[in-house]
This record gives sequence, structure tokens and C-alpha cells, in this order.
Amino acid sequence: MKSILTVLTFGLLANPMVQADTNNAEVQAVISRYESALNASNTDDVLTLYGKNPTFMPQHAPAQVGRAAVKQAYDNVFSTIKLDVEFSIHELEVLGDTAWARTSSAGQTRILANEVVVNEGNNELFIFKKENGDWKIHQYLFSTSQPRQ
Amino acid sequence: MKSILTVLTFGLLANPMVQADTNNAEVQAVISRYESALNASNTDDVLTLYGKNPTFMPQHAPAQVGRAAVKQAYDNVFSTIKLDVEFSIHELEVLGDTAWARTSSAGQTRILANEVVVNEGNNELFIFKKENGDWKIHQYLFSTSQPRQ
Repeated sequence: MKSILTVLTFGLLANPMVQADTNNAEVQAVISRYESALNASNTDDVLTLYGKNPTFMPQHAPAQVGRAAVKQAYDNVFSTIKLDVEFSIHELEVLGDTAWARTSSAGQTRILANEVVVNEGNNELFIFKKENGDWKIHQYLFSTSQPRQ
Repeated sequence: MKSILTVLTFGLLANPMVQADTNNAEVQAVISRYESALNASNTDDVLTLYGKNPTFMPQHAPAQVGRAAVKQAYDNVFSTIKLDVEFSIHELEVLGDTAWARTSSAGQTRILANEVVVNEGNNELFIFKKENGDWKIHQYLFSTSQPRQ
């Protein structure tokens, strides 16, 4: 084992496969941090995960383009509902400094106005961009998978 | 003008910029054909635009994975509503044999059960794959941008 590990360590920067695995893991980590920020209703944490010119597409609203609009949209979401959801990654592909992922999320939502708890379930597509060495959310769209009310 | 056109013609296959423009135009054409197929309620035409292992994510349902599931989902949509929508492309990027696009669509929907016509508006993300030389829809998610009913 030791010799294999030594080879991997020395070959790390030159090996495209290892670089791909690293990028893949970094994008997965962004999705994990996004899940945590959503569940914590933390707009600041969400915003650290978005890039310099992002688009967030909340349901029942126009696409929110740019960091200021994205911030306002998350503030609106978090003032209305408290999420408790878990993301599952179904497909994830890294293409140079761009990546995309298809995920779904499931859990519950508490509506703050009346404390009613409802089932939450969505499908999501993310487009990521690597900016200054860090993977950031560039485009994000979700849509409910729950039965029509 | 003739000399410029000659240069372009001879340089066509070798020039990455021209190839990028061609791919970009081909992906735009797929979106245009998708718009036409939706408005014609034509599942067969829709299916020619999807690739070999696609995902379609209709609202209020789990993600539909694979051509058979995608076909069934469009049959369900077209048996329920008649769409009359126009797509706008906001961002489109080609990365080798993968492309993504952010679009929105707007128009009207006629609900076949009661002939009621309602406003339709959605945000969309597409992931495309070039398969055997043709751009195909690999992933497609949309979500309503209309105010909550």
C-alpha cells in the first residue's frame, strides 16, 4: 500500500484523473454546504457559495440575476419558511472550469406564518463555475416534485 | 467580400471559433424545435430531441429517467394541457460535447378538461450532449415563474 500511496502523492498534480476526482469532491462539498445553509436559513452562508454573476430561480417568481437579487430572494424565502431537507446527487459532471449536477432534495418545510409543517420534495439542476480556484454556484433552478395541492 | 468568404470556407473545420458558433447555433435550433414540438403537443417530435439516457423533470412528479419514462411523461402532459409558449434564451454555453442553456418561456396554457386558458411562465435549465454528431437534450428541468395561485 505504501508504494501505491507514494505514487499517487507524487503524481497528484500531473494526473488528470486525480484532478477530476478532486474537482468532483469539491463540487459535492459545495452542494453539502448549500444544504446546510438552507437548513440553517443563513443567507450569508448561501451567498458565499454563489459566484460573481449568479442566477437563482425561485418558484413563482422571475429569475433572480446578480448577487443582490439572489440575496434578496433568499432573505424572502427564509422569512417565510424553515427548511429541513437532504440533498441526493444523481449526476455530476466536471468539464474544465464548469460543472453541472442533477440533484433532488426531500424533507419537510415549516411555514413560519402558521407553523404548519408540510412535506418538501424538489428536483434541482446546478451549473457551477470555478472562480479564483473555488467552485461557485452559477445557475440554480429547482422545482417541486410533490403532488399538486 | 468574396475573399473573406473564401477564407472562412477554407478555414471552417480548422477554426475553433467557427466550430463554437456552429455548435451554438445547433443548440439554439434544438431549443427552437423543442418549442415547436411542445406547442404542437407532439410527443414523437419531443422524443427525437432527447438523447439516449435523458432526464425530464415535470413539476409535481419525480424525475423521469430514460426514454420510456420521458415519453410517458410528455404523453401525460399533452393529454392534460395545450401549450402556446415562446422560449427566450438567456445564457448558452458549449463545452466540447456538452452544452447548457438557461431559458425562460411565456405564453398561455389551455387546460383540456375545462377549456380554461391560464397564463404560463417558466424558467428552464437544459443540459445537452452531442451524440453521434447531433445535439440532444440530456437533462431538462423547468419551474413556474407565475405567481402562486
